[in-house]
Amino acid sequence: MITKNGIAVSPGIAVGDALVIGTEDFRIPQRFIPRRIVDQELERLHQALENVSAEILENERLANEAIGLQYGAIFAAHLQMAQDPKLISEVELLIRDRCYSPEFASSRTLRKYARQFQALGNAYFAERAADIYDLEKRILRHLLGEQRESLAELTQPVIVVAHNLTPSETAGLKKDVVLGFVTEVGGRTSHTAILAAALEIPAIVGIGPFIADISGGDTVVVDGTSGEFIIDPDDDTLLRINEVRQKYKSVSDRRSQMRDLVSETRDGQRIFLMGNIEFPQEAEQCEQKGADGIGLYRTEFLYLGRDTIPTEEDHYNAYREVIEGFPNQPITIRTLDLGADKIPGWIRRQYSDDSNPALGLRSIRMSLHDMDMFKTQLRAVLRASVGAQVGIMFPLVSSLLEFRQARLIVREVMEDLEELNIPFNADIALGIMVEVPATVLMAKEFAREVDFFSIGTNDLIQYTLAADRSDPQVAKWHNAADPSIIRMIAMVIEAAKNENIPVSVCGQMSSDPKCVPLLIGMGIRQISVSPHAIPEIKEVIRHLTLEKAEAMAKYVKSQELARDIESYLNRELRKLVPDNSQ
Amino acid sequence: MITKNGIAVSPGIAVGDALVIGTEDFRIPQRFIPRRIVDQELERLHQALENVSAEILENERLANEAIGLQYGAIFAAHLQMAQDPKLISEVELLIRDRCYSPEFASSRTLRKYARQFQALGNAYFAERAADIYDLEKRILRHLLGEQRESLAELTQPVIVVAHNLTPSETAGLKKDVVLGFVTEVGGRTSHTAILAAALEIPAIVGIGPFIADISGGDTVVVDGTSGEFIIDPDDDTLLRINEVRQKYKSVSDRRSQMRDLVSETRDGQRIFLMGNIEFPQEAEQCEQKGADGIGLYRTEFLYLGRDTIPTEEDHYNAYREVIEGFPNQPITIRTLDLGADKIPGWIRRQYSDDSNPALGLRSIRMSLHDMDMFKTQLRAVLRASVGAQVGIMFPLVSSLLEFRQARLIVREVMEDLEELNIPFNADIALGIMVEVPATVLMAKEFAREVDFFSIGTNDLIQYTLAADRSDPQVAKWHNAADPSIIRMIAMVIEAAKNENIPVSVCGQMSSDPKCVPLLIGMGIRQISVSPHAIPEIKEVIRHLTLEKAEAMAKYVKSQELARDIESYLNRELRKLVPDNSQ
Repeated sequence: MITKNGIAVSPGIAVGDALVIGTEDFRIPQRFIPRRIVDQELERLHQALENVSAEILENERLANEAIGLQYGAIFAAHLQMAQDPKLISEVELLIRDRCYSPEFASSRTLRKYARQFQALGNAYFAERAADIYDLEKRILRHLLGEQRESLAELTQPVIVVAHNLTPSETAGLKKDVVLGFVTEVGGRTSHTAILAAALEIPAIVGIGPFIADISGGDTVVVDGTSGEFIIDPDDDTLLRINEVRQKYKSVSDRRSQMRDLVSETRDGQRIFLMGNIEFPQEAEQCEQKGADGIGLYRTEFLYLGRDTIPTEEDHYNAYREVIEGFPNQPITIRTLDLGADKIPGWIRRQYSDDSNPALGLRSIRMSLHDMDMFKTQLRAVLRASVGAQVGIMFPLVSSLLEFRQARLIVREVMEDLEELNIPFNADIALGIMVEVPATVLMAKEFAREVDFFSIGTNDLIQYTLAADRSDPQVAKWHNAADPSIIRMIAMVIEAAKNENIPVSVCGQMSSDPKCVPLLIGMGIRQISVSPHAIPEIKEVIRHLTLEKAEAMAKYVKSQELARDIESYLNRELRKLVPDNSQ
Repeated sequence: MITKNGIAVSPGIAVGDALVIGTEDFRIPQRFIPRRIVDQELERLHQALENVSAEILENERLANEAIGLQYGAIFAAHLQMAQDPKLISEVELLIRDRCYSPEFASSRTLRKYARQFQALGNAYFAERAADIYDLEKRILRHLLGEQRESLAELTQPVIVVAHNLTPSETAGLKKDVVLGFVTEVGGRTSHTAILAAALEIPAIVGIGPFIADISGGDTVVVDGTSGEFIIDPDDDTLLRINEVRQKYKSVSDRRSQMRDLVSETRDGQRIFLMGNIEFPQEAEQCEQKGADGIGLYRTEFLYLGRDTIPTEEDHYNAYREVIEGFPNQPITIRTLDLGADKIPGWIRRQYSDDSNPALGLRSIRMSLHDMDMFKTQLRAVLRASVGAQVGIMFPLVSSLLEFRQARLIVREVMEDLEELNIPFNADIALGIMVEVPATVLMAKEFAREVDFFSIGTNDLIQYTLAADRSDPQVAKWHNAADPSIIRMIAMVIEAAKNENIPVSVCGQMSSDPKCVPLLIGMGIRQISVSPHAIPEIKEVIRHLTLEKAEAMAKYVKSQELARDIESYLNRELRKLVPDNSQ
């Protein structure tokens, strides 16, 4: 039994078989085959090896034709490796005697040799190891053929274990077969973590290196509430985990009764509690949990996990699905926030490497850079919003000029639609995410021009404290309780109040139960949270009085250190909701 | 003739032969040899090829011993390549007929074949190309042997041309042989650019891809004032360049007369004009140009371009050199600002990958993380400061707690020195760089605890506007004239005034002549600039009145858009110093 601790990013407990995802993009199915199909599988191996040889010969022929030098000899070396009897018999042995799948057996054997080369510890041998990995990839490609399983095509329940998962991979995880997931890297507010919580899949990130300690098929426990990850648990541990699971369930049952209660403080201050969603299906989840609307509808999912650019109809259908699933409630659609850690393949090709993607060409900058993409999205939003209470929110706006440009494009698109007699919502509200420090400093001027503010605390904290939201090395700097963040939020609230425009908070901070009383005390009346957090946050709100919240805000504003603010907020939360499980 | 435009980062004009630095760390000497030594050079080629063959055989033997499989065949393929008669005769031909050096001839021939492989456009062939590059590297290593020239060992004047130069490579450039340098990537405030200006080597960065258009030995023109880069200029162009050079020289001659004049406005307001330096030798340059002291002494150079950690004596000697070269003047030493784009090899090994290094574990965070390194530096500064007017400045401080921790370490080091009876300056001033937005928001509280502020505009702009200072894609966002930046600077000045502590500005903004009147009008009385900019900035100051500066600041503060502020400042500068060459 091995126990590791990481960052708990999506609550709940899962127990199941580990599925280890290889670092080479290939999922190496570390699986066993039934003994009765061993011969069949050996046959499949030999067929794959034959195909690999044929492929190498074809490559050699092409090379000779094109270049005409004797570099073909390199291919001969690869061919010799692919036909090496000692190597092949080792793989066969693993299949026949140990019932390894041919994929697993080949991968294991070749990687063993590659590691031996690497262990010789000089650059030349390291490149030879690369040759072996290359052969491994070739063999796996032929073995898996068209059947190469992607995460989206899993059929048996597993706990996904990986060095890292991209947001698009996470987005592809199916809730019914992926019981939980665990990664070596990542931080609390990485988009991968946000997606996991959205999918309500228990998840831990940032555990540090552990993949070497695990084999496919090992039983593992993921406690996405505490951050504990256990490989090969013993019976006592399983018993204990079961108890925790029970307790977790009882808190969750209690909270599920919050559904039909109004989100208001004990002294009757209504707090609009909205959901942050990524996928149209999540709107339903928000509705079930009793949300007052959608405060943040992220639209990146339309672009991630696919090879083609989504059409206007793709956009339109996704927006209509949410609007229809949540009638008569406000829905705020955020325009594309691509870039930084959310970059689809076709965009990566288009834009050059940037060494600090979070400080690069992303979000509204990318939209204004790629006008066709931007207009397509705006047309779809405008069309979908007919008869609905929809707002458009621009992310990462950092200057008035940028907002004015975006607004101008919206008006252009409206004129186009008008000419074509296509109905649209002409009164649609245009707001911005306040998530760049410059925008906070200019909040007074922005408040005169925009229809609403939504404070994006994740990015705001990242820039204000110069601490990458997904870098575990600076996780302690990325803190919503930092007094500079409190001041920034206060500046935004004041600017909004002066111009009488709505201001909400939609980063991870608003899903954090200890921060909610503070935000309300500071004047926030609308917060937007991860769907899974809705019941818990509603419970906090219903335990609070406005008077208490305001006193808390006053105290916090007098503090100079993040750690003092943080422990004060934790203390107050425990007093407010004594059995809060977090 | 080909003309390209990039970002001018270090003024002046250079005309000379291009030295192209390969992307593979190897400097490929694209040189010609005298015909009389052709036979000698052919002999050297054959010797190198023999050595390569012997090395490959030895590698094969080791691999066979260690692994015992037939992967040795890969080595046979490499051997065959290294002994391929067609290949060798091609290389020989270039040496014999065209007087190419064996290095250049081998590199050229092998790269040609590698490119042919790459052009076949599939991943497998791309890896074969890598095999050829591998052989190229081997041959070059043997040819160059121990004589492999590093940039620091250049003897003939050249213009260095590269995809990129690391700050440590730039630091290694010798002013007497490197006439100028030009890179495909990089931005205005990258440390490479700052170093170039410090070394007074005309330089252009961020030109975009052009290496394919140039060969070693081509005549090139670098106009580090306008950003123009010309490959193989025609006679008319050379004539024109010569005129520009004359004009540039006359402005520069006029400015050199500023040396002994006091840095003050026309109405007698003294402005302390300090230098930003990186290398001890630059202190002399500042002194020659009439600086009032060193406002920013960067200490990263002690760590870059070397494989071992500098000792306390290395630190001490570097600090004493500056203090003695600049007696009776204030000198502000900044503790290590490593991380982000300045990462020595041994640190890179120690810290894990971070996807946004500018938002990662850097500067004071790294110092507090590596206490031994930090204390070594502090001991050296404290010892070197005896009898001198020295201040210690901590970079990237983002919370009061961090400053208090740093101050505590200084006190610990002082106690250690006391116990050992080692003299030190107990009254040393402890200040901070204000370069993180959080610190601006907390400036009032910081001002009560620190001895001085120095506003680091480069990082402050980068974080406040979420725009990487070295990413050309977001260069237009990285703008000192943004109203949010003006507000931040005003907040810092006000906080400093309230507590009566000095505040200076030391980023690139203070070396920008159009920004200097604004800064003075806002209340700044001390600025620290690149040594080469001292005469120009002194000239601007001496043309200014305080009244005018204050009126400018008032006008700028009323503006909402960066572009309006920028054009206003440019207009006013032209009125102030009509023939300003920038």
